[in-house]
Order: sequence, then C-alpha cells, then structure tokens
Amino acid sequence: MSAPVYDVTTWPGAPVSPYTDIGAVINSIIADIKANQTTQTTRPGGVIYIPPGHYNLLTRVVVDVSFLQIKGSGHGFLSEAIRDQSNTNSSQWVETLPGSSHIQVKNTDGNAEAFLVQRSGSPATVGRLNSVEFRDFCIDGVASSRPFLPGNGKIGISVQSDNDSFRMEGMGMVYLAHGLINKGADAPNITNNFIAECGSCIELTGSSQVAKVTNNFLISAWAGMSVYAQNAEGLLLNGNSILWAPNVTLDGATRCSISGNKFVSYFPGLVTLQNGSSENLMTGNHFRRELGDGVSNGKDDLFGLIHLNGNGNAVTGNQFSVSLPTSAVTPSGAKLTIILVGGGDSNYLATNQIVSNVPSAIVLDASSTNTKILYSGQSGQLQPYSSSYAFVPTP
Amino acid sequence: MSAPVYDVTTWPGAPVSPYTDIGAVINSIIADIKANQTTQTTRPGGVIYIPPGHYNLLTRVVVDVSFLQIKGSGHGFLSEAIRDQSNTNSSQWVETLPGSSHIQVKNTDGNAEAFLVQRSGSPATVGRLNSVEFRDFCIDGVASSRPFLPGNGKIGISVQSDNDSFRMEGMGMVYLAHGLINKGADAPNITNNFIAECGSCIELTGSSQVAKVTNNFLISAWAGMSVYAQNAEGLLLNGNSILWAPNVTLDGATRCSISGNKFVSYFPGLVTLQNGSSENLMTGNHFRRELGDGVSNGKDDLFGLIHLNGNGNAVTGNQFSVSLPTSAVTPSGAKLTIILVGGGDSNYLATNQIVSNVPSAIVLDASSTNTKILYSGQSGQLQPYSSSYAFVPTP
Amino acid sequence: MSAPVYDVTTWPGAPVSPYTDIGAVINSIIADIKANQTTQTTRPGGVIYIPPGHYNLLTRVVVDVSFLQIKGSGHGFLSEAIRDQSNTNSSQWVETLPGSSHIQVKNTDGNAEAFLVQRSGSPATVGRLNSVEFRDFCIDGVASSRPFLPGNGKIGISVQSDNDSFRMEGMGMVYLAHGLINKGADAPNITNNFIAECGSCIELTGSSQVAKVTNNFLISAWAGMSVYAQNAEGLLLNGNSILWAPNVTLDGATRCSISGNKFVSYFPGLVTLQNGSSENLMTGNHFRRELGDGVSNGKDDLFGLIHLNGNGNAVTGNQFSVSLPTSAVTPSGAKLTIILVGGGDSNYLATNQIVSNVPSAIVLDASSTNTKILYSGQSGQLQPYSSSYAFVPTP
Repeated sequence: MSAPVYDVTTWPGAPVSPYTDIGAVINSIIADIKANQTTQTTRPGGVIYIPPGHYNLLTRVVVDVSFLQIKGSGHGFLSEAIRDQSNTNSSQWVETLPGSSHIQVKNTDGNAEAFLVQRSGSPATVGRLNSVEFRDFCIDGVASSRPFLPGNGKIGISVQSDNDSFRMEGMGMVYLAHGLINKGADAPNITNNFIAECGSCIELTGSSQVAKVTNNFLISAWAGMSVYAQNAEGLLLNGNSILWAPNVTLDGATRCSISGNKFVSYFPGLVTLQNGSSENLMTGNHFRRELGDGVSNGKDDLFGLIHLNGNGNAVTGNQFSVSLPTSAVTPSGAKLTIILVGGGDSNYLATNQIVSNVPSAIVLDASSTNTKILYSGQSGQLQPYSSSYAFVPTP
Repeated sequence: MSAPVYDVTTWPGAPVSPYTDIGAVINSIIADIKANQTTQTTRPGGVIYIPPGHYNLLTRVVVDVSFLQIKGSGHGFLSEAIRDQSNTNSSQWVETLPGSSHIQVKNTDGNAEAFLVQRSGSPATVGRLNSVEFRDFCIDGVASSRPFLPGNGKIGISVQSDNDSFRMEGMGMVYLAHGLINKGADAPNITNNFIAECGSCIELTGSSQVAKVTNNFLISAWAGMSVYAQNAEGLLLNGNSILWAPNVTLDGATRCSISGNKFVSYFPGLVTLQNGSSENLMTGNHFRRELGDGVSNGKDDLFGLIHLNGNGNAVTGNQFSVSLPTSAVTPSGAKLTIILVGGGDSNYLATNQIVSNVPSAIVLDASSTNTKILYSGQSGQLQPYSSSYAFVPTP
Repeated sequence: MSAPVYDVTTWPGAPVSPYTDIGAVINSIIADIKANQTTQTTRPGGVIYIPPGHYNLLTRVVVDVSFLQIKGSGHGFLSEAIRDQSNTNSSQWVETLPGSSHIQVKNTDGNAEAFLVQRSGSPATVGRLNSVEFRDFCIDGVASSRPFLPGNGKIGISVQSDNDSFRMEGMGMVYLAHGLINKGADAPNITNNFIAECGSCIELTGSSQVAKVTNNFLISAWAGMSVYAQNAEGLLLNGNSILWAPNVTLDGATRCSISGNKFVSYFPGLVTLQNGSSENLMTGNHFRRELGDGVSNGKDDLFGLIHLNGNGNAVTGNQFSVSLPTSAVTPSGAKLTIILVGGGDSNYLATNQIVSNVPSAIVLDASSTNTKILYSGQSGQLQPYSSSYAFVPTP
C-alpha cells in the first residue's frame, strides 16, 4: 500500500490540469482515496498538497471523508482591495495577484462554494466528519468590491455536516462573500489564519460546541461579520487581531469568552450579544474606534462599541479608545455609546478604561436590571434608563 | 551526504513493515541517524515522517538524540468514547477509528510508553536533550474506558531526561492513561494539540522552568489531570480550551499564569493550587460548572471550582458560571464553593463575576490570612472562617 | 510548468554546496524563481526547503519577491550560552551545536544580515512585499558573548521594504545581535518562535500597523530589547514568555495591547512606554523580578518594572512578583518601583496585585496628571510627586 499523499500537480489520475480546474483534480483524488479505503477501519484519509502556483477552481470540491488534509505552502495574501481601490497605479507593481498556493474561485458549476464539506446520511447513522483540515493555502474570490457582501456571493469553505475537531490553520482568504461557514461544529480549531477583505470571516451556524478561534487576523468590511456564533456554547475567541469593521456577534450564545483580542474599527458594533446571549466574558481586549474608509454599517453611535442583551455577562479589564471628529458621530450631537446594556439581568462591567475625544457614555436601557458598573466610567458617563443598577464611578 | 529526512513507509532499513510495528521502524531510523552523525558538531538530528495510515506500535520508541522531529500529517482525532459509550450504533459509521497519521499503541515489549525520550548519563555530563519535536500525528491507546486512568496504563510520550525547548505541536492523543509526561523540562512548548479522552493530558514532573502550554484542547475525564505542574516555575497556560473534567493542579508551583482559558467542567476542582503554590495568577478565564456524564472525582462542591492553598496568588477578572440541579450539589444542601482559600497569606481576588443558579460562596478557611476579596461576590457570598481578610462586596 | 518547490540540498542550479554557503544557494533559487515567473500575474513565489543539517552562510540572502516561503524542519535550539558560559565541561556533551535546519551565519560578504528582505523601487510604484515567510529553521550567530549587543553585530532577518502580511513562525534564533528587524510592517504575524540569547529579539522600526506577536519565547539579555515597537499602531503582544531581561519598549506607540504574557526578569524595565506612547493596554500579565545573572542594564530599581510616559494607558489585572536580596536593590535603600508613571494624563491602574519581599511602590512623577490607582497597592505603597491622582488603596 502506498501512502495516501497526493500532489495536485503530479497526480496521474487528474482529469484536467490543476491550473485549469483544481476542483476537479481534488475531487478525483478524493475519489481515489475512497476507492482505496473501503472499510470502517481502513480509512485514515490522506494529504492533498497544493504547491505554490495560480490555480483556477471551476468545480466545487466536495469533502465527504474524515481525516483529509488539504495543504499548501502559504496563505499568499496580497491586498486586492488596495490594488483595486487605491489611487495607486498598480501597473508597475511586481505582483498583482495573491500568491503561494493560490486558488482562484471561478466556479462554472453553478455552486457558490469552493469547498463543501458534507456527506450524505444522518450523522448518527454515518458518523460525523472528523478532523478535516485546511492548511496554508489561499482561497481568492478573484473580483469583488466593498463591502464584499453580498459581493460575488462566493464561499471559501462551507461545512454542512455535523463535524468534530475540524481544523483550519494558516489559511488565507480574500475577496469572498463568506470565508468559512461551519454548521454543527464540535471543537473546531481555527487558528493562525489570515482572512481579509471578505464579507464575513467565520460563521459558526446551527449550534457549535467549544469552538476555538485563536491567533487569527480577521479583516472584514462593514456588511458582514468577523465572527458569527449562533447558539454557540463555550466559544473561545482569544488572541486575535480583528480589524476594519470588527463585528463579533454572539446570537443566542452562552458562556463564550472573548479575551486578549485587539479590535480596530471604523464603525460601531464591535461586539454584539443578542437573542439572550448570556454568561459570556469579554476581558483584556483593546477596542479601538476611529474614522476610516467605508460607509455606514447601519448602526449609529448609540449602538455601542459593545452591545449587550442577555444575562450575567461580564466585561472586565478592557481598554476603549475612541477618536472621531465630532462631526462624524451619529446621530449628530449624540454622546457616543461605549457599552450599551440593551436588556437583561446582572451584567457586570468592571475596571474598563475609556479614552474618548468625544463625549461618551455607558448606557443602560430601561429593561436592564441589576447591572453593575464598577470603575468603568466617570460619574457623568453613565446614562441609565433603568433604576436597577449599581454604579461605582471611576474617580 | 543525503539529508536526514526519512519516511517510515519508504525507509529501506526498516526491519519490519511500519504498519506492523512502527516503533521498530522508528528505532531503526534513529539508529541510522546515530550511525551517520558521529561527532558533537555533526548532529543536526533529522525528520521522521509518518504519512497518513493506520500503524501498529509494538515496540517502544526511544529518542535519545536532540533535534529529532517526528511528524505526521494530522492529529486524526475521532471520539472513541462516543463510539464506544453512546447508544449510537456505529455499525454504519463510515469511519470507526482515528485517522490521519494514526499510531495504535499495542506494545508487546512490556513497556507502557509509545515514545520514551531519554538518554543515558547525567545531563551535566552528556548534555540535555534539546528541541525534540512531536508534531501532527495521532497516538491512540486503542481500547479503554472512562475515566481512562488507570485504564490501559498506556503513556503517549514520556520524557525522562532533562530537556530544553521540547516541542509538542498539533498532536492528537486519545485513549491513553497519560498523554504527555515531561520530567525536568526547561522552556517546553506545548501548543495547538488535541488531547482528548485521556486519563491525564500533560504532566510536568520533577521541576520545570517556564513551560508554555497554549492554544490546546485538553479533554480529560475525572480521574486524572488536564495539566499537572510539579514544582513548576513560571508556567504559562494561555488560550486553552480545557474540558470535561478540567483539573489544572499546581503542586508547589510558583509564579505561574493561567490566563485566557475556557474551562467547562462536570466536576469541582477546575484549578487546584497545593503544597504552597504561590504568587500564581489566574486571570481572564471562563470557568463553567454544569452537570454532565461521569462519576465523582472524589471532590465535593465544598472543594471549590478554584482551590487555593498558598501565598500571594491572584484571581482577577474571571467569569464563573454554575448551573446545577440543586439535588446534584454535594454534600446535599451545601452552598457550592466557587473559590476556596484553603490557607496561605495575601491571596487577592478581584473583579470576578459569579453566576450561579444554586447558592454559592467564596470560602476562607481558618488558616488563611490577609485575603482580599474585591468585587468578587455579593455580601452574602463570603463565608469566612478566618477574620483576617478584607472584603469589598459586589453591590 | 513544474511547481516552484526547491530543496537546497538537491537544487541542480546551486553554484556551491549548501553546506558551504547556503546563502549563495538560496540566492540562486530566488534568481531561478524570478527567471521563471515573469509577469505581474504569474508570480506565486515558491518554497525553499532546508532539510536538517549544519549549513554555513557566507553570502547574505536577498529576498525581493513576494510569497516566498523559506522553511526548515525545526528551530533546533541549543543553549550556546550555557555551553559557553557555565562551569559545565561540555567536552562530553553529545551535541554542542544547535541543530535541525541549522544555519551558521558567517558572512564573508561584508554584510551583517543573514537574510535581507528588500526590493528596489518605491512601494507605491513596485508594490509592497507580501506574505514573505520564514518558518521552522535556526539562524545561529555562531559565537558571541553576553549581552550579545553589540556582540557580533549579526542580524538574522532584516526587512527593509514596506511589507504586508509577513510571517515568521517556528523559527529559532540564537547568538545574534538582532533577531528580526522589520521596517514598515503591515499586519506581520510573528508567532511560535524561539528567539533566545540574542541582543534584541524583535524590532519593528519605522512604523508598523497591527503587528501580531503571539505565543513566542523571547529570551534576550540586558543590552537589547525583547520587543521594540517604534511608532506602532495596534500591536498585539499576547501569550508570550519573555525572559531573562525582558524589555518591551513602545516608542511613540499607540493603542497596543500587551496581554496574557509571562515575564521573568533579572532587571528593572520589563515594559517601557516612551515618547508619548498612549492608550496602550497591559492586562493579565505576570511580571516577575528576581536576582539572576548579568550586569546592570543601566536602569536602577526606581525605573519601574513598568515605566509609563504617555496618556490614557491602562494597567489592569496583572501580577507583580518581586523577590530580591535587600542588598541587590539599587540605589541602596530605595523602595523598588513597581510602576512608574513618569508623566502623562489619565493613566489607569486597577486590580494589580503586588507581592514583594522588599519595600515597593507605585510612583507618580510630578508631571503626571489624573492618574487612577485602584486596588493596585496598599496605602503605604503610593509615592505621588503629583497631587493630581485618585487612589483607592487595596485594603
């Protein structure tokens, strides 16, 4: 038995050149793996290596085996937005495309996804997809325009079967409407990626368990989300740099942790907790709001840099830094909201430092109860529309 | 000279098929490295690559050279516990074994370890083992049952010589009594691993210096430990997801940092500081206690989610989330202890948020002195058996 | 077209053995890449693999193409300082050199750098260098002595052209005056490296945007810096172990985040914010100051473990642990300064725990205004030379 290690550029079973349609080539490799691995206990998966090169993808890849690693030699990021949108004339640039192991998504099969991870049958019957891994290559949507959503509608990777221990590491994604969508994830590991100039970066849909999203660059524009976690339990979002229009939305999500991240935003709504998202922790993050390029994301400055609606969430030890021209605050004349407690019981804010060149406030909506605000704002900075709170102002 | 890069499936010096006994094959490769690298200044080590496949290990591997990298193409995790213990009928599952570069530990040599890293002679005389590296493969104990300790008694990797800059990255471990034991480690780097369904995950024995344990999934059952650090100085445990029965035990350990981790536990005792463990920092963690599968770990709910005994430790900016049926709290009728200061001087608790559906408390034992409890519990939540403390209740 | 994947030991175009001069070999490979990739849209870069071995570098490598990955099979660290400086007789050591993919920097070309990343022309005209990547090999300065700066003057990697999404991962560096210098970096990713026994580890010069420095070991002696960030915006320094003589200097840097790190130092000045560095966050770090080897770094114990001069910085939820013989405190008889607010407005210190065996203080210089010191020191621990502050002592 020869080891199931494939190179897309040398695979003799390729139906077409990988430079013409790497999707068809990878599908043919997966078919070969399935033809060679035929019993429950002889299915270790395999490795598909993509050397540096520019590859077109015309056919969607369907991954329906566990333990498959698709791997390149670098995320190959180049800013297509700067190339396309700046005043710079790129006619003299040495390179004008992303590179390394670079896949250009140009489906001619009617599908939106470059990679679909899915298999037929109920997970209880056929088992979940385990340890599928994407590593160190670039998925490029080729052409788009800000804010990239709906944009070209392209999806980098969509996982649509229940899955365990999924890995995405070192990947580059650019000019996609959706970078990664993962439905029904248990313990996915999403680390050290460079996802930029996409509509949404990471969307954990359905429900997820203990997802780990760490050490990434997540750079999305204002129409989509940096991280969307639907009915998530126990997400850990740690040590990421989340930029441009950071939008981490926890939607009915509980006991997640957002810690040690750096946010830089040109818009309100850096973190939103909605639909009863409760007992989440936001700690040790740096939240920056400034003026930059792009148009409104539909939220005004009353929305909050952090917008909470749920119970028992904690916001501790963060830094908020705002600098905006007064004229840029919306609605005009408003105090900019740093944290909005839009509702819910027993939310806890402590030892947050606010630096703002424009008037700013922590706002408690009328339906909020038992909020604690401890050393997180000065006496004039609390705007309570509820009387159910305790406030220890920063002296 | 040809480069010391080996593939276990193609190494012509293999005494046996690697699928039959990968241990014997790797040992033969190490012997070849030693035969070719014969002076102090001509020993760069080598790479041993394990392609995807199911390999039996009958013979323990002994690593006694520095700079050896043993590397696969994926951690290949599949939950054997779910396969074995659920009501699900796995007869229709597509895969029923872990995969990728998958080693099944079946020693016939009388040894417990799959990999032993050790060399003869005093470290002062022969030097320490430097930069030994395990990466991206799966070590599977094959058969076990919860709580996996003593279980089958198998050990994934045991390092028993003083060592410097050890690396374990991207590894999978499952159904082992002990995942990694490392004795006498200086600056080990244990990152991005998936260790699950093991008795204990990571045990740093003897004494260790500035170990770094980051970005891992550590999933252990109730008999063992997630991380055990004996006489450790300066451990950094950051950005990990620690699950099922988290048990981080610092034993005579000083100036360690447990930060930015996510804990989900079905038992008390998520973090224990014993034998004078002092000046450690626990900050920005999310601690979840709920009801789940498994039987008692021998600790009741008076033990504390965090159990401290030592001096000058700090617990700041954490979230504690407890939800249990009242009937599940032990002893019956007790207030569940969130943090127990079991003794020691000048421990410091600040800005911790507690959410609990059952009555809960921070408890100070009689021998504790000068504990500070600042905005970490409401006025009814402190149970002091000592009078030497300062308490600023959360309003 | 064959894929641009090269191995330095088998490249037929090599002008010389890579063991003699790997620099000349890599330059010849880069020339080959450039000869084969000739248009803006056909430049995916390539991979240059360095198998384990001891390689001399006589000629500086110049990287002037994007998307180049230079990759080895391990950082190969061995402590040359222990070998050279201890009383241990290393004549019986099994290995006395670093290993794995080990490059010995011995330039005979008059250059200080092993690797220079630079291309001619203005970045606006020719484009920035994108996604250049160094991974998993060792750059060794061969001979040096503490504190390694100016030492042998050697530089591991110097990036001197504006660059985007630079990656340095898994690298080892030892006995260099400067590990990495990167000028004009946008979104560089510096993660999981082992940089030790160097003068300075990481220097981000010119100005940088949203650098991410995570999960590294950074071990520098007292003459240089662990991390130097000049005019940086939004650096994230998270989850690192920073040792020996940690010196993180933010120089005119704004809105950076230093979180979740472990510091162990034999000297004052673990973090310095100078030249108006403002709105930076230091949270969840463990700062250790003890007595160790080495001579003065020119700072006395009035300098501060953290030395701040700027506006709106926050220091929250950290642990400070000092143990020194009284006789080792300088100037003699002084109270050791934990945090010095040397100037600036509205700096915010909250919930920091100080453990010290010698008298210690938080000091506010006369020019500081509106400093908040909340539960970060006991009533006797504040030394204000300004009257513009608010102090809530730890009870």
